[in-house]
Amino acid sequence: MKTVDFYFDYSSTNSYFAAFMLPEICRKHGAIVNWLPIHSAALFRGTGFDVMAMPPRKARYLWRDHQRYAEFTGLPFRKPSRFPIKTAAALRATLMIPGLVGKNPDEYTEPKMGNFAQAVMRAYWERDENLSDLGVIGALGTDVGINRDGLVAAAGCEDARARLAAVTDRAIARGVFGAPIFLVDDEMFWGKDRMEFVEQWLTRK
Amino acid sequence: MKTVDFYFDYSSTNSYFAAFMLPEICRKHGAIVNWLPIHSAALFRGTGFDVMAMPPRKARYLWRDHQRYAEFTGLPFRKPSRFPIKTAAALRATLMIPGLVGKNPDEYTEPKMGNFAQAVMRAYWERDENLSDLGVIGALGTDVGINRDGLVAAAGCEDARARLAAVTDRAIARGVFGAPIFLVDDEMFWGKDRMEFVEQWLTRK
Repeated sequence: MKTVDFYFDYSSTNSYFAAFMLPEICRKHGAIVNWLPIHSAALFRGTGFDVMAMPPRKARYLWRDHQRYAEFTGLPFRKPSRFPIKTAAALRATLMIPGLVGKNPDEYTEPKMGNFAQAVMRAYWERDENLSDLGVIGALGTDVGINRDGLVAAAGCEDARARLAAVTDRAIARGVFGAPIFLVDDEMFWGKDRMEFVEQWLTRK
Repeated sequence: MKTVDFYFDYSSTNSYFAAFMLPEICRKHGAIVNWLPIHSAALFRGTGFDVMAMPPRKARYLWRDHQRYAEFTGLPFRKPSRFPIKTAAALRATLMIPGLVGKNPDEYTEPKMGNFAQAVMRAYWERDENLSDLGVIGALGTDVGINRDGLVAAAGCEDARARLAAVTDRAIARGVFGAPIFLVDDEMFWGKDRMEFVEQWLTRK
């Protein structure tokens, strides 16, 4: 059974689409999603990439492109009022979920992580909720059956910080330079528009 | 009958793929390609984009992605030894073709432009030829039935420079920020990976 390492950040529009497209493809081909939230600000450090330095005509086009993907996928995507945003707390909360549901804390294939990640994506990219508000993070935990106070406390602890740094550092070491990035058998795919190639890779003989 | 404005530069790998994928889609749906070579160096001026500032891990991935598109399209793509390159002479030669074959010099839908543009793309991205060599440009003209000396002379004249500047300036005014970009009914599509959306747009009711 193949595993797809899914590197994502909640601040990435393309990761939002991928968070729904990838699990569907994996389900279809009996593969497993390894949920790997990364701190993309740290990822871009030293690469010269700056989302805010984008020329307005390019930014305008990208929103149009996202709209087209919303139609294509049927996802009720809405441009959020806060952008970009700080996502560290939400990323850390995600990484603590296996431990909180009594699993091996390093088992990032835990399905509840996926449920929570999708809930966070919907909150920000569909309902314009404020992800830097810990109350929002806690409520999203409740939605997927995780104790809100436990989740908020876990997101703030040292272990959560260490996990986020470790996953991000490992991503950089593996060549990850953006989000979403998918790694299967160390083969890399970048972007919501490479799903067919991921699918092809999962089904090749 | 719809026209697709195809903004491209010979230095753009993604434009290479698009130069073969787009005409096929247009043929299928009875649309016409408007060949619009642009000076992408001028396009990127002031946008902060710098192809050489790309982190090595991203550049490495992009070549892999191009390889996958080569397999997908069946095009015999090869990483050239000179990269990036100066393309102004080849771009100017392309723009002079309608006049050289006795058509309205502003008729950039002239099919010989497409033949020549594809020949230039193949020379650089398949056979590693040197596009800054005017002898190469002339020989590619001969290949598509255009007088080599006439083409080389035309590529160097003031009118050619003015045309390249005008097409590039008009592109910027229309919001073009990269290559390849396709405009149909002022709807914009960016990249070799948006062909399906172009096709959808051409066939919508």
